[in-house]
Amino acid sequence: MHIISIEIKDRRFVLPAGVGSDATHTTPQYSYAVCCLKTDTSITGVGLAFTLGVGTDLVCKAIEYLSMSLVGREMEELMSDFGTVYRKMVDSPSFRWLGPHKGVVHLALAAVVNACYDLWAKSRKVPLWKLLLDLTPEQLVNTLDLSYLEEVLTRDQAIAMLTDHVPGRENRKGVLSTGYRGYDTSVGWFNFSDEKIVDNTKKAMANGFTALKLKVGSDDPARDVRRAGLIRNVAGDNATIMVDANQKWNVPQALDICRRLAEVNPFWIEEPTHPDDVIGHQTIARTIAPLKVATGEHIPNKVIFKNFFQAKAMDFCQVDAVRVGGISEFLTISLLSKSMGIPVVPHVGDMGQIHQHLVLFNHIGMDHEHLFLEHIPHLKQYFVNPAEVCEAYYQVPQTPGSSSDLKD
Amino acid sequence: MHIISIEIKDRRFVLPAGVGSDATHTTPQYSYAVCCLKTDTSITGVGLAFTLGVGTDLVCKAIEYLSMSLVGREMEELMSDFGTVYRKMVDSPSFRWLGPHKGVVHLALAAVVNACYDLWAKSRKVPLWKLLLDLTPEQLVNTLDLSYLEEVLTRDQAIAMLTDHVPGRENRKGVLSTGYRGYDTSVGWFNFSDEKIVDNTKKAMANGFTALKLKVGSDDPARDVRRAGLIRNVAGDNATIMVDANQKWNVPQALDICRRLAEVNPFWIEEPTHPDDVIGHQTIARTIAPLKVATGEHIPNKVIFKNFFQAKAMDFCQVDAVRVGGISEFLTISLLSKSMGIPVVPHVGDMGQIHQHLVLFNHIGMDHEHLFLEHIPHLKQYFVNPAEVCEAYYQVPQTPGSSSDLKD
Repeated sequence: MHIISIEIKDRRFVLPAGVGSDATHTTPQYSYAVCCLKTDTSITGVGLAFTLGVGTDLVCKAIEYLSMSLVGREMEELMSDFGTVYRKMVDSPSFRWLGPHKGVVHLALAAVVNACYDLWAKSRKVPLWKLLLDLTPEQLVNTLDLSYLEEVLTRDQAIAMLTDHVPGRENRKGVLSTGYRGYDTSVGWFNFSDEKIVDNTKKAMANGFTALKLKVGSDDPARDVRRAGLIRNVAGDNATIMVDANQKWNVPQALDICRRLAEVNPFWIEEPTHPDDVIGHQTIARTIAPLKVATGEHIPNKVIFKNFFQAKAMDFCQVDAVRVGGISEFLTISLLSKSMGIPVVPHVGDMGQIHQHLVLFNHIGMDHEHLFLEHIPHLKQYFVNPAEVCEAYYQVPQTPGSSSDLKD
Repeated sequence: MHIISIEIKDRRFVLPAGVGSDATHTTPQYSYAVCCLKTDTSITGVGLAFTLGVGTDLVCKAIEYLSMSLVGREMEELMSDFGTVYRKMVDSPSFRWLGPHKGVVHLALAAVVNACYDLWAKSRKVPLWKLLLDLTPEQLVNTLDLSYLEEVLTRDQAIAMLTDHVPGRENRKGVLSTGYRGYDTSVGWFNFSDEKIVDNTKKAMANGFTALKLKVGSDDPARDVRRAGLIRNVAGDNATIMVDANQKWNVPQALDICRRLAEVNPFWIEEPTHPDDVIGHQTIARTIAPLKVATGEHIPNKVIFKNFFQAKAMDFCQVDAVRVGGISEFLTISLLSKSMGIPVVPHVGDMGQIHQHLVLFNHIGMDHEHLFLEHIPHLKQYFVNPAEVCEAYYQVPQTPGSSSDLKD
């Protein structure tokens, strides 16, 4: 199977009022820059990068620059040494000036890389999670670019880690029977009224969810504390409640408000400050312990994740395969995360479509803990094979590929 | 004076063979994404963002998104509270997803912000350095966005710092008579032959330069050591020689090669590893001391600079006003740098055109040490008012504005 041409799509979706809103991103339009790899067969590889609307065209244009070198490539040959292909794309000598490894060009890379893995899985007629499990440790590591991680994770160490976890796979395959647990993010969008978040909490609990998220970061922190209390009252002491400030606070504010939010016993506090601030997060994590810090949806690459892990600046790693350099860099960061003792709980800019595969592989193949995966249902109608969540569990996808196909 | 329309230009320049080459960026095409603010007068504000060619169109398109809110604004009113305008631009709720504060959208911001300051200086009929010196500390700080720096630099602290340095200004205005010392980067481009770098060194010394830079990061480190030795031999023990690896090494490689380069007594080692790697740079700085580390040309924003300073991960701050959010964020980072005891020695993606103004202000207005400013002459012919360097000193620019006007 050969890639014969590239098609790029700018897809933007209208959301109901208030949906997707947070303290920082008040009026999101969920959108995808889509890379489609056309082949000499009827199969097309589809890769997504997530945006909030404005400027998706920039990502689309960057996809064009990054993907052109793929035309003519044979799939198995391409993926047999994809780590090298990846490194050539991210370190293209002049284009990299626009990043490197961050922003528009890296979002575009996500779409291109994800399309390659999607096509690979489709060509082998297996869902992505199975493709990844079918690879030998060496074959999997061949798809990764481990440069700039040498002092913490070498190629040999990565292969050894995967190899060490092969014997335990059978036990962990139990997840293929149960499905992967989900948590509900759509309970408490920032612009929702108190009545609506209470009502949504009841509905979520009725649907089997026991883990819920509330958006915080209000100008008046008392609103955050009050709303978190409302959800705690409805959901009960046993529910898992996460609060998410979406970068709204500076470090002194975060320290103050986290202290006040502690009374509702949140499972984590997400994005308490600027996503680039490793030392700010370190200060917050040290000060608010045993409260825990989650972050990662705006961390663009493995080098910055490495720094967060080294600084013990996050307790949960929320890497997103439609923000970092696609599935390849997601896997690299998952390996790094595992080696440094941090659980991976992805942010799902893809609405969980790709990540439902990735958490299965992370759990079975790397022995990452089966915690839960974010669930956001708002784009379900636009996917050809939307993630199925029953009684709060993601059902194991069986269709070949990464579940990224969008309806026209 | 009102802004009535925006014109955006994609300007790319052809360089002679080998010029501009480094270990990572092997075939650069020096280019600018240019933001032109047209007014209801004959004056136009011109702002630059620097790229290496490919993808400059992406930056141009992002300039369009960012600058549209400026149309109709009156200049003095705009600049009287520019920090707020800046923050609104960088935190535009959906567009910021593409960064935030990094990559293509932040390069575009540089062009937009630089055009505002250029226009402001032109409207007041003074060169940029004088505009900045003429502002009161409070007026200057009003043009900055100090968010996410609160734990290290508040607004009051910034104003106090500037105020404290007012009395010493008269002494430091001596630099207006001497000009600002330059150093020569164009001696030792990566692709230049040994003969050429020796010849260039002789020419640079004959022109009065006593500070020179060599590009390193060769696949065979012995080449770097040999070439540095050649320059040292020609320039003599008193010359200041900087070596620049342009991110080529991983951390273990950097530690090894820096040790070997120590024998030529470099003044600093520049960009020894990935520009996002705060802790990597910290490790390198600690290990190779008293050798010093310089970095910053690829650090996109104040938050990451803050982390580098907090971690003592750099000895020289090479912030570039055509990489960060323009003159506004350059000044913010200069204040932060001063408050944390780090000298600012800018990288000059602008070929020194804007930075010749900024280092004068940094020295006179903030008491930053008068070290030297990078000099790269390759685009001289394209500027209306090219920087004049005589006997290795930048002559003080007298034309109104920021010296950013390009010939058509």
